[in-house]
Amino acid sequence: MCNKCDDKHHIAGTAPADPARRNVMRQGAGLAIGAAGGSLLAGLGGAAGAAQSSTPRSSMAEETVEAFGFREAGAPARSMQIQRRAVQADDIKLDILYAGICHSDIHYINGDWNVSGVYPLVPGHEIIGRVTAVGANVTRFKVGDVAGVGCMVNSCGTCENCLADREQNCLNGTTFTYASEDRISGGLTDGGYSRKIVVREHFAVNVPQQLDLARAAPIMCAGITTFSPMQHWKLEQGQRVGVVGVGGLGHMAVKLAVARGADVTAFTTTPGKVPQIEAMGATPVLWDDQQAMQNLGNSFDLMISTVPYPFDIQQFMNLLKLDATLVNVGQLGQIDGLNGMMMGFGRKSLAGSMIGGMAETQEVVNYCAEHNVQPDVELIRPDQINEAISRVVDKDVKFRFVIDMQNA
Amino acid sequence: MCNKCDDKHHIAGTAPADPARRNVMRQGAGLAIGAAGGSLLAGLGGAAGAAQSSTPRSSMAEETVEAFGFREAGAPARSMQIQRRAVQADDIKLDILYAGICHSDIHYINGDWNVSGVYPLVPGHEIIGRVTAVGANVTRFKVGDVAGVGCMVNSCGTCENCLADREQNCLNGTTFTYASEDRISGGLTDGGYSRKIVVREHFAVNVPQQLDLARAAPIMCAGITTFSPMQHWKLEQGQRVGVVGVGGLGHMAVKLAVARGADVTAFTTTPGKVPQIEAMGATPVLWDDQQAMQNLGNSFDLMISTVPYPFDIQQFMNLLKLDATLVNVGQLGQIDGLNGMMMGFGRKSLAGSMIGGMAETQEVVNYCAEHNVQPDVELIRPDQINEAISRVVDKDVKFRFVIDMQNA
Repeated sequence: MCNKCDDKHHIAGTAPADPARRNVMRQGAGLAIGAAGGSLLAGLGGAAGAAQSSTPRSSMAEETVEAFGFREAGAPARSMQIQRRAVQADDIKLDILYAGICHSDIHYINGDWNVSGVYPLVPGHEIIGRVTAVGANVTRFKVGDVAGVGCMVNSCGTCENCLADREQNCLNGTTFTYASEDRISGGLTDGGYSRKIVVREHFAVNVPQQLDLARAAPIMCAGITTFSPMQHWKLEQGQRVGVVGVGGLGHMAVKLAVARGADVTAFTTTPGKVPQIEAMGATPVLWDDQQAMQNLGNSFDLMISTVPYPFDIQQFMNLLKLDATLVNVGQLGQIDGLNGMMMGFGRKSLAGSMIGGMAETQEVVNYCAEHNVQPDVELIRPDQINEAISRVVDKDVKFRFVIDMQNA
Repeated sequence: MCNKCDDKHHIAGTAPADPARRNVMRQGAGLAIGAAGGSLLAGLGGAAGAAQSSTPRSSMAEETVEAFGFREAGAPARSMQIQRRAVQADDIKLDILYAGICHSDIHYINGDWNVSGVYPLVPGHEIIGRVTAVGANVTRFKVGDVAGVGCMVNSCGTCENCLADREQNCLNGTTFTYASEDRISGGLTDGGYSRKIVVREHFAVNVPQQLDLARAAPIMCAGITTFSPMQHWKLEQGQRVGVVGVGGLGHMAVKLAVARGADVTAFTTTPGKVPQIEAMGATPVLWDDQQAMQNLGNSFDLMISTVPYPFDIQQFMNLLKLDATLVNVGQLGQIDGLNGMMMGFGRKSLAGSMIGGMAETQEVVNYCAEHNVQPDVELIRPDQINEAISRVVDKDVKFRFVIDMQNA
């Protein structure tokens, strides 16, 4: 129980109140602080840390901030108080300006994916904020800069995956931006539906001035999640790519693929999205049009599926060319109904992919700035979160709700 | 109804008696004879064909031969008569010496995979035979040579997949060795559980003298099926490969991977196979040993699954390293139970793969000869087919039954 509010929400530096919360902590994450160990000491306000820091001591104190969270699965969002840790030597502190509402947030809010013990939950992993304090070792940010924070806030930094710039696949357990064991503060992390956040510099990206800040937040998840497969599978100009599902992730996939000069087909179940798909430069296909689907057999060099719930994925596997891959970035639950024989005809692959490493995240933010790729967003106030969630579930969003944290 | 026996089995040159047989014919296969069109004329015994052929005319006649087939799903094998077409200009004719019993045969025999209309069925797609006649245009074989025939006997030859040496993925429909629409004779093809076969030269491989003929047949399916993924995914010396299931395909995967100098782990459910796995040079793991499985997480560069029935495939996906692939070559039915999130952690892929093209099939046969990779077989007489099938289902075979067609 937090002693600063009437909430059972955990506070920084204490163990999770509910042992069940550990159900969702990734095995092996432990307290493998690794290279971050030194900054823990620096942040305690002791002689070593204070002596090295040029940041005013007042900003180093732990702080209670307002967040918008969920007390239990399926509960409505409500204002609550959380703790943000004191700024460590490797940390930056942000006033959060904008936070996107990702469909993954809704899975957590609703208790899908067998998550348990994550409540009270403060979601949000598409964050744009302004830097208000920096730790002693910070080199890439100064107070007043704009920074982006995505789906992760820490990793061990020492395993072979981290060393390969794949912090999201940390073998000792990535610390995700919310509902993840916090290597530094203890307890579970709280996300971007809040006023402020403290994060290691390594897990923040610089946001170029060319980007419209009100639209930039979704790049931090939807953007990197769809950009990364195009990089890995080397989507080239003129190649045919299919994007399945045109929501937050899907519309970013379309825009990023069009920017690369690919021939983009976007599959949707929502006729109302057809004009927007065309406006983005892609060919829309309603995927219940069996004739259209049949005509597209064996024709795509790459497909990216962004649909966040179970659906007939095999019908899209059948649209791949020889040796091509469908990358699933949306359906993170159980996947059923593949056909071994049909995958064998043409040596087709189904791949998973999850966000991207921090270097690649900086790359996509820069790419969006250079190529004027900006998400289509609908800004809401914090008190509209519940309404927005309902509209996302009803597919009534074009294409991402973003909470304007400065608007009340 | 065949007018030469009491069987309803189709004979060459007639349409399938049962329209339901067409259920299994691949869409678009049609009668796209393509480049083979000319050889049809040559094979009719007319002036054009006879003039170009040095083959005795008598051998060009259509022939009734004994086969061992199945009248309906689940029926026992019995001797029956089938027709083999007259030798066309591009054809060779073989006396079948050996025919392997593949688990796919059993799926067809039992009516799995929703096949229907394929009975009477003559399975068999691991064939070693001696050439008894050659057509006028044949250049790679002469009478007396030994040839191998695998899973396919024709394709269009003109689509982009055929032109890429991927005849098994022919966009106009590969003609498989049995239960497949026959582009030349009409009706459905009959496989290797028979005394003779006539096949286009392009779909036969030369069998080097170094190979023990009695053991060579399984290379034509089990060998190429497991060799092809190692080639495509570039399995290198010293890399770690996991082979799931150690039956006909699996033991060939082990032998081929060991021959490449890979570090091979073989997963089985049968403790009795452990000594043989060790003798082949691989590390055996009983996959119900949860601790052993956990210890192997994120450690394989490539996995090849040969298990021919549904099983928990995700547990093996979890053993892949970053960006690595599990290639399923065994389970050709519905695949369920993948986990989108776990595939995302590490960008892991599940791929299908099906045999290999004819050039690659010749390559694996040559490779086995050069590296002394030979299947472990148990020879049986044709009258032991039913018993052998039962033993395969009971996993009581090390590792492939091969019918010795010259033994009664």
